[in-house]
Amino acid sequence: MTESTRMTIALDAMGGDHGPSVVVPAALSALTRHPNLELVLVGDEAVLRGELPAATDSRLKRLHIQHASQTVGMDEPPAQALRLKKDSSMRVALNLVRSDEAQACVSAGNTGALMATARYVLKTLPGIDRPAIITAIPALQGHTHMLDIGANVDCTAEHLAQFATMGSIVASAVDNIDNPRIGLLNVGAEQIKGNDQVKQAARLLSAGDLNYIGYVEGDQIYGDRADVVVCDGFVGNVSLKTSEGVARMISHYLREEFRRTVLNRLIGLIALPVLNTLRRRIDPRRYNGASLLGLQGIAIKSHGSADAVSFGNAIDIAVLEVRKDVPNRIDRHIEEHLPQGNPA
Amino acid sequence: MTESTRMTIALDAMGGDHGPSVVVPAALSALTRHPNLELVLVGDEAVLRGELPAATDSRLKRLHIQHASQTVGMDEPPAQALRLKKDSSMRVALNLVRSDEAQACVSAGNTGALMATARYVLKTLPGIDRPAIITAIPALQGHTHMLDIGANVDCTAEHLAQFATMGSIVASAVDNIDNPRIGLLNVGAEQIKGNDQVKQAARLLSAGDLNYIGYVEGDQIYGDRADVVVCDGFVGNVSLKTSEGVARMISHYLREEFRRTVLNRLIGLIALPVLNTLRRRIDPRRYNGASLLGLQGIAIKSHGSADAVSFGNAIDIAVLEVRKDVPNRIDRHIEEHLPQGNPA
Repeated sequence: MTESTRMTIALDAMGGDHGPSVVVPAALSALTRHPNLELVLVGDEAVLRGELPAATDSRLKRLHIQHASQTVGMDEPPAQALRLKKDSSMRVALNLVRSDEAQACVSAGNTGALMATARYVLKTLPGIDRPAIITAIPALQGHTHMLDIGANVDCTAEHLAQFATMGSIVASAVDNIDNPRIGLLNVGAEQIKGNDQVKQAARLLSAGDLNYIGYVEGDQIYGDRADVVVCDGFVGNVSLKTSEGVARMISHYLREEFRRTVLNRLIGLIALPVLNTLRRRIDPRRYNGASLLGLQGIAIKSHGSADAVSFGNAIDIAVLEVRKDVPNRIDRHIEEHLPQGNPA
Repeated sequence: MTESTRMTIALDAMGGDHGPSVVVPAALSALTRHPNLELVLVGDEAVLRGELPAATDSRLKRLHIQHASQTVGMDEPPAQALRLKKDSSMRVALNLVRSDEAQACVSAGNTGALMATARYVLKTLPGIDRPAIITAIPALQGHTHMLDIGANVDCTAEHLAQFATMGSIVASAVDNIDNPRIGLLNVGAEQIKGNDQVKQAARLLSAGDLNYIGYVEGDQIYGDRADVVVCDGFVGNVSLKTSEGVARMISHYLREEFRRTVLNRLIGLIALPVLNTLRRRIDPRRYNGASLLGLQGIAIKSHGSADAVSFGNAIDIAVLEVRKDVPNRIDRHIEEHLPQGNPA
């Protein structure tokens, strides 16, 4: 698909900590950025109408509303959401993807419920045992794709190898690179290091046809060694959240130092433009939007606390994945590479 | 023990990437900082003599040399080091602790070999199945103790609970706090989150008598929620190294921004004193030195690439643990708290 392709994306307008007050403005600015995009706001129709701009706004022609009577709570157990919230904004948005009325959906709702509902509604691709969540994170040069960042707390070596395949296809499609470098996250670079799953996954990847470069350590995620870093969802989640914590602490220290004395405040004022550029570069909002991978459709998870800029970034990721046709690429790759008669 | 207590610490003078060229200067400055400290440099006597200052230096009276003919390589498998390197600087330093000629030892040698040799030479404390490695990391206020950061890639719930006990005693002894807040590192704050080991460890800790505060997430390690964060060695290692990577990337960005234009360079020059204070605050050298916990003696691991300042910090940690009598405190606590007849 090209940039001029028309596409429709469904937005779970009630999800996240802020619901429509964030999703509607994010939708409007996405419509400005993408002239061929149509968006469907899914949620309480009366509430959503109240958030819309004046009828003269020409973007309203590409902004539709699909009513959904329920909302999934941010702490609601996934099984309960699946059983009792059949008309939730999250579920209805996913239904639109399944029925092909939308090519992707974006939700800031609770991760567990989104994953469970997406699996149920969209189904996994043949050959994929477990969907995983992938995100791009900033690196010294460009960015690194990391998965799984939280869908699967326990993984076998086979799961890790499937994640590697999916990650390779995403990096290749999104960044236009031919043979993305795949690293396995481990506690050391030597072959003897690591737990059994990781060691066994290394053997599978070494025997496979991906561009597997070996083990990478935690500090190399932010370096320039690998395009894709593969790990289980427990480790990936801790690593990503640790990063947020460190970045926040350093920002805090930076503010403290530039406020310590009157002179420091003055220097801080002079340095403000430079510091603001830095702040923009490490702004986590620029990296908001993680993709649920391995499903028969595109579902993007936004951070629950996302603001409009941040949610807009998640919409941009959905646009990109639709253009790049990510699920079909994964499907084709698996079909071509799975040994005949493989029960998976 | 008080600050005036005399103590002897053995230094593996051949370990690490730089060996005596780092260890000897670090030793000399530690002798200046601690007037009641005696140090034993363990390693090749001829090499070590060559690194010593002029005989007029009065600190030489408190600096001894113990010859050891072998050195453990930084990539040498632990089992091989244990079997073939019985006269290594690392092993002889640990022997001095066992024979009570030294109250602690410090090594920048390879972690796996140090752990294996320390376990063999010093033995674990009764009731401790697995030693763990603990380190202090900077936090918004003060610091957080984290364990295990790399000794055990697979842990049961019981191991995690033992780590919690040891961590609590270290935090209490080192920071003079009464009931350190213990958090279990997990992927979410809700009870249903996490893998089986973590959930089971949470049950053990809830039933125990530590000040267990529940799950903490990766970003909270650097917050102010817990005094001790408990995790398995795989997750701990990845989290710690991820932090290093993020800090390095932000420093890199900061330098880049302050060099982008001539004006930015000028501003950078003006802001230099403030930026240098920041750099000192996040300087990883200030946090060098991790403690091997659960052994019948004190062994401190320095980063292999440590410089003299950094190695000196690891010596300071050894001094503090000797003063606070950490292994005996753990031993007493376990003796008082283990149910009678417990096979562990």
